[in-house]
Order: sequence, then C-alpha cells, then structure tokens
Amino acid sequence: MTYLESSEFITLSDYRTQVRTGLWTGPSRGVDPSFVQCNVVILPEDWAESFQAWCKENVDVAPIIASSAPGDPSLPALGEIDIRSDLPQYRIYHHGAFSHETTSLTQVWRDGLGSFTFGCSFSLEAALRRHNIPLRHEERGVGGAIYNTTIDTTPVGPMQGPLVVSMRPIHRDYIEQTIETCRRYPRLHGAPVHVGDPSAIGIDINQPREQFGPITVEDDELPVFWACGVTTQGIIESVDPDLAITHKSGHMLVSDLPLDSDLLNIP
Amino acid sequence: MTYLESSEFITLSDYRTQVRTGLWTGPSRGVDPSFVQCNVVILPEDWAESFQAWCKENVDVAPIIASSAPGDPSLPALGEIDIRSDLPQYRIYHHGAFSHETTSLTQVWRDGLGSFTFGCSFSLEAALRRHNIPLRHEERGVGGAIYNTTIDTTPVGPMQGPLVVSMRPIHRDYIEQTIETCRRYPRLHGAPVHVGDPSAIGIDINQPREQFGPITVEDDELPVFWACGVTTQGIIESVDPDLAITHKSGHMLVSDLPLDSDLLNIP
Repeated sequence: MTYLESSEFITLSDYRTQVRTGLWTGPSRGVDPSFVQCNVVILPEDWAESFQAWCKENVDVAPIIASSAPGDPSLPALGEIDIRSDLPQYRIYHHGAFSHETTSLTQVWRDGLGSFTFGCSFSLEAALRRHNIPLRHEERGVGGAIYNTTIDTTPVGPMQGPLVVSMRPIHRDYIEQTIETCRRYPRLHGAPVHVGDPSAIGIDINQPREQFGPITVEDDELPVFWACGVTTQGIIESVDPDLAITHKSGHMLVSDLPLDSDLLNIP
Repeated sequence: MTYLESSEFITLSDYRTQVRTGLWTGPSRGVDPSFVQCNVVILPEDWAESFQAWCKENVDVAPIIASSAPGDPSLPALGEIDIRSDLPQYRIYHHGAFSHETTSLTQVWRDGLGSFTFGCSFSLEAALRRHNIPLRHEERGVGGAIYNTTIDTTPVGPMQGPLVVSMRPIHRDYIEQTIETCRRYPRLHGAPVHVGDPSAIGIDINQPREQFGPITVEDDELPVFWACGVTTQGIIESVDPDLAITHKSGHMLVSDLPLDSDLLNIP
C-alpha cells in the first residue's frame, strides 16, 4: 500500500496546468518540493481587516506570505496565480457554516473577495528533508495526521477557535535538529507546538481529525506537533461572513516561491 | 528555606531607586510583576546591525522590545531609564570573552554603545499567574532553572551559538493552558520550546547551567522549557566585539511597561 512516491515528484508546471484544467483534484503532496505550498483563506472585503488582525496574533498558525487586494484573483508575489482555479479543491462556507467542496471558484467568485495565503507544513517537510532529517511517515509511504487540540488560539474580537495541529513521527535522535531546522522557517509554522505527549495538549493519538494513511509512532520515535493552517476553518466557523472559502486540507496552492525565498523570513 | 515571597512584592520605584544607588545588587524576581522585566544586551555601534539581524532570525530568544540610538543611555519607550545604572548587575565581555561582573556601567560606558532590550520570562511567569496557572516552583519557594540545549540558534554571519532555555515544572493538567497563554506573549519568549522530555533537547535535568533553588519535577508535573535571553551571552562569545555588556542572569531591567502594553504584541 503506497500513499506516496516521494522519489518521483510532479513538476510545478504540470501540477498547475492539470489543476487549472480540472484534471487534478487530489492532494498536492508529491509536487516538486522546491516550491512553497500555501494554505488559502478567501474572504469578503468587510472581513479582511479583522481576519488579518487574527492572523497577526496567531502568526504560528497563519503566517501570511501574500495577500491580494479585494476583488483581485491574482497573487503576483507568488507567481502567475489565478486563485479561482489554481487549487485542486476548495471548501465553501456560508454564514460560518460549511456548505460544500468544489474544484473551481468560477461559480462562487464575486467582487470584493480577497485572498490570504500562508506557509504550509508540506513545505516544512521539504525543509526537513533538505536538512537530512528522516521523515519516518514518508518512509512508510503515508502522510501525517491532523488533530484538534484543546489549546485555544488567541481570539481577536469574535474570531476564535481551537488550535489544529499536524503530526509527524520523528526519531528521538532527530528531535533537536527538527526543532532547530523548523525555527528557521517561521512562515512555514516554525518550531513545533509540542513534542512527545499527545495528552498534554488534549490529543488522543488514535483519534485524528484527518489522517493520510495509518498512524504509527514507533518506540524510537516521538510524535511532533505543528500549528496547522486547518485551524482557520474553525475561525471562519466562529463568525458570520456570508461567504468564505478555504483550501481543502492537503489540497494546496503550490506557489512559484522557492523554499529559500526571503518571503519566508519574518518581515 | 524560602527563596521567594511572592505575596510581598517590591514596588518598581523602590527597586529602581535602590538599584540606581547601588543598595540592591540581587535578582529582580520579587519586584511588582505588573511591569515588564527585560533582558539587556549593549554593544558598540559597529555590531548593532548584525546583532539586530540575529535577533530578527531568533525572535523567540531575543524579542526586541526597545533599543537605543548609539551613545544614548536612555530608553524612553521603557520609562525614565538610565541603562548605565538601572540593572542590579551587569556582565562585561571583552573581545568575546567574559571579563567580570559589575553593579554599574559608569567605569565602562563610552560613546557609541547602544542597548537592546528583550522580554524576560519573569514577566511570562506574571502572565501565567494572571491566567491562574499554578507555578509549582514558586509554591515550593524556589526559582526555575536555566539549561544549555544542543539546539543551535539560527546563525547570522559569524553570530551563532546554542539555545539556552529556562525551565519551570507545570502540573500536567495545566500544560494546554500554559501553551495557550504563552502564545499570547510573543515578546516574552512566547510558547514553550519543549515540554516533557529533557533528553529530547539534549538536557540532563540534574545538570542545569544555573539554578535558583533545588530543582524538583513531581510525577504529576512536566518540565516546560522556554527560550531564554541568556542565549545572547553565547552569541556574544561567538564574535569579537571589543566591548559587550549583558544583564546578569536573573538581574533584570524592570521597565515602566505594564504587562498589557501593546509593545508586547508582534509589530
């Protein structure tokens, strides 16, 4: 059973063309990891300011890499992007409630919508690979898992919700290097939120919110948890925008930004 | 054996007067916790830019709250401070090597020296108290402890060195709240670097770099580790400024900034 074939990456241009034409509707894991993958939140103009304030207070969860002017579907800082077509799947929310998933925004796009993009931990995995830190879940041919925690994010006005984290098992001998490496990428969620004891942050390791293959944490490994962009879905559900759009978990915007871009540094 | 009497705080004005006149040369733990305590690094003008760049890359270690122009011993953003007299003890470095400790900078001050101040975890403790998180070490009448880790900070040019962390034991039931609360204070070192397994970050819990009373972590507690401003001492030792000055561990600049100051937020 193989979920990943990390030795054979899809090129960015193939991915973007196939996503744009609706041929690719699956997760973006497996696309050339040289390019930064992004979480996406799209909101009407009147919600942009307060959401941006929430992001600022929760920068490990939602580190903004680029955002667009209201009504503008392009994101020139990230390449020749059309946000309406360049994600394989989107989640649509009406009045804070999940409505449906879709592979294109042509039906729902309207004036005044603006996009926020954030670093994704798929690219943090790429950084860990570059630093020769073994990704045990990849060696097993599976993805990581996503968990709800009982840690509240920092609320801003009515925007609030629990922290969602991604988990990857890391060999005990590589924990220090993992923390050290991730600290260098604050715009990709940075250092782990927690290492080792899932119950300390309200997690039952066998009860993920989502999993991308069977979860295994061996005796010589520790589970490592990072802030996850999926958190923003709960934030949207805490308020009442008549329309809101996010990427579907794992189905990311892959940007033209290289992993060593200055845009990944703290401004 | 009582190391702390947290119910009886010294007022800021008493502390500052006594420090300034040389009557107070001990640690600043126990000063009115409503006011933000700061780590301090003082460097010649030609080192200011590269040190600031290092701070930016290691913002959890060295979150700059205020800095002064070269040659200016005042820090108006933090109150009526004279950096030459308002710390109870200083550490003096020559050419990257520790020279001696002193209670005043009048002998060593010269043109071109500039100050950097950073949030200190003494004030993070104050924030935890405000959120009703029991500080078990304080209940036992002791301070925390400081450890060297085997995690490298992010180097900038020749400036490099291992991360130093502070440790406090927290009851297992309060770990989530501790992380949640600390995330709200990014300028006071923010969320813990690690919780639970000292060996995962290269620490032998019985071998602190410094301790402020006997170290105890009970079965119902976990050791919680935060990035510590003492890290900057190693950074100074990695380069060659003819003169550098830091606070002595635990002997902080207490500012006029209240704990709810906007200056503690991410800019």
